[in-house]
Amino acid sequence: MPNSILKQEIEQQPGVIQTLFDQESGNLRQIAGNLSGSFRYIVIAARGTSDNAARYAQYLFGAHNHLPVALATPSLFTLYQQPPRLAGALVIGISQSGHSPDIVAVLAEAKRQGCPTLAIVNNVTSPLAETADYVLPLHAYPEQAIAATKTYTASLGAIALFSCLLEDNPDHIRQLMEMPEKIQQTLDNLGPPLVHVERYRYMEQCTVIGRGYNYATAFEIALKIKELTRTLAEPYSSADFRHGPIAIIHKGFPVILIAPRGAVSENMVELVGDLKHLGSEVLMISNEEQLLRRSQVAFALPPDIPEWLTPLVAVIPGQLFALQLTIEKGMNPDRPEGLTKVTDTM
Amino acid sequence: MPNSILKQEIEQQPGVIQTLFDQESGNLRQIAGNLSGSFRYIVIAARGTSDNAARYAQYLFGAHNHLPVALATPSLFTLYQQPPRLAGALVIGISQSGHSPDIVAVLAEAKRQGCPTLAIVNNVTSPLAETADYVLPLHAYPEQAIAATKTYTASLGAIALFSCLLEDNPDHIRQLMEMPEKIQQTLDNLGPPLVHVERYRYMEQCTVIGRGYNYATAFEIALKIKELTRTLAEPYSSADFRHGPIAIIHKGFPVILIAPRGAVSENMVELVGDLKHLGSEVLMISNEEQLLRRSQVAFALPPDIPEWLTPLVAVIPGQLFALQLTIEKGMNPDRPEGLTKVTDTM
Repeated sequence: MPNSILKQEIEQQPGVIQTLFDQESGNLRQIAGNLSGSFRYIVIAARGTSDNAARYAQYLFGAHNHLPVALATPSLFTLYQQPPRLAGALVIGISQSGHSPDIVAVLAEAKRQGCPTLAIVNNVTSPLAETADYVLPLHAYPEQAIAATKTYTASLGAIALFSCLLEDNPDHIRQLMEMPEKIQQTLDNLGPPLVHVERYRYMEQCTVIGRGYNYATAFEIALKIKELTRTLAEPYSSADFRHGPIAIIHKGFPVILIAPRGAVSENMVELVGDLKHLGSEVLMISNEEQLLRRSQVAFALPPDIPEWLTPLVAVIPGQLFALQLTIEKGMNPDRPEGLTKVTDTM
Repeated sequence: MPNSILKQEIEQQPGVIQTLFDQESGNLRQIAGNLSGSFRYIVIAARGTSDNAARYAQYLFGAHNHLPVALATPSLFTLYQQPPRLAGALVIGISQSGHSPDIVAVLAEAKRQGCPTLAIVNNVTSPLAETADYVLPLHAYPEQAIAATKTYTASLGAIALFSCLLEDNPDHIRQLMEMPEKIQQTLDNLGPPLVHVERYRYMEQCTVIGRGYNYATAFEIALKIKELTRTLAEPYSSADFRHGPIAIIHKGFPVILIAPRGAVSENMVELVGDLKHLGSEVLMISNEEQLLRRSQVAFALPPDIPEWLTPLVAVIPGQLFALQLTIEKGMNPDRPEGLTKVTDTM
């Protein structure tokens, strides 16, 4: 299935991000100006792929905007009806469909408490968009494949743009604006390693590890593998992994490592050594030559991307890996069994 | 190995919690009094089993104390050296050993910023205890088995006691004080279902699902299974599970469901129906008759425990399941391969 909708949507990512930047920079500069100084920390409500984008926001808002980020516990707002007091928080909902009742409930309660609210959505006529004070549209519409790809990278782009405009940092904005081109470069260079995905035709489980900014990437790649190929894939930070789960590693156990150049590199070099010692098979997503050389399958990222922006490219090999594995297994990448595009949870 | 250290430590849990309550209620009442009104939200730094206890705190402090809880991102404090501004937060570190440098770094930075800090530790002469303004000892010392059990339930007990004393709610305190007896009852009633653990001798993977207060339980049981039996076990909230990962379920796929009576029950009844429809094999931890009846293996919890306290008993069948599976597989429960008791991460 060389022309699956999923493949087309993966390839649309540079264009979607470019459109988002072109269409929303002005709007978002105004939102950031209005919001500036009105909150001391951020609460984010999201599920699935959007929750993975929220993990990126935890690190980026923390590092660049010095804002603590809490991921909301929606059941406190719905099942338990005992919402926390959110005074001092900006409350952000992220959702492709803008439809899940539990995410809408968090923003509605935040508004009732007088907190500022922002919806990052693909569907701008959704309940979530209608509930929020401010709306940031993703411009990825329509996303037809069940597994989200372009709405994920668009959510990362939206979060990064908001962070840059909040801190009003021209260097960061300039670096961000180069990302559509870097995503295109990433897509263009992945042909050769993808040939080896057939090696994993009978893989039954794997682990995906990232840290810091790319903790989010580990979660999103693991989710794509599970959704598309029904293979158990568990995500970890390299630190959490060492506190127990490393026990599962045995000879031949496949580990996908996300390790672009940056503050986490040293940590990752050490982990690769330990994994190799345990006999693990390592698949590497990186732009560090010494890491790529030490892996069974190497997905090279473009050089010279600031670490804080690497999640926008590092997920791409994972999306394509999951897609290719679906094809090798003779499954339908556009309609994974057991899933629907919009999931409503309370 | 009928008398493993792990089994002894699991059986010590009622006594440990009782000692914690006896020894620390006065101290903690004073700490709660000193801290009251000095913060608007809580940040918790923890790894591994302690991080699972932190997930319980997210729900309990949210529901009973109306306090939002953020789980810290330690790498912002260590690898990236770009800590968020924590004004308005109480910062809590939870650690058995009190030793992991990344957790100590979060509390040290919080102190530098003038935030109040609390260490919940088993080892009171540790760097974490020395860094914090206030120390809450777990009284579970020594824990010799590598897989943590009694320090986990003691951490839950410590969090629950702190929550009760912060809100100064005599009903909740009275309910909490009954828990050592309820834990003993749980331990006493688990013999019959444990006979069937041998059924899972060749299980290669499973999923563990809980929601709300027992989201933490799902994480902790999955971690015990991974640490002790080297079997891949992935934890989920029932809501997150529906947003993608449910795709992995196929005929015979084992799912451990944690579903004590409470606000999540209806949600769980619905999920069991869907899992059965997909052909899943369901292991149930509950005190709801209708849920226990619909499962392959049923771990019954004592009736009449308020939902917010069920995590202190619901983890016990999971600990014993993991222990028994270790024995069925001929592995050493006290010394799982590839793990050490104290893990230092940066």
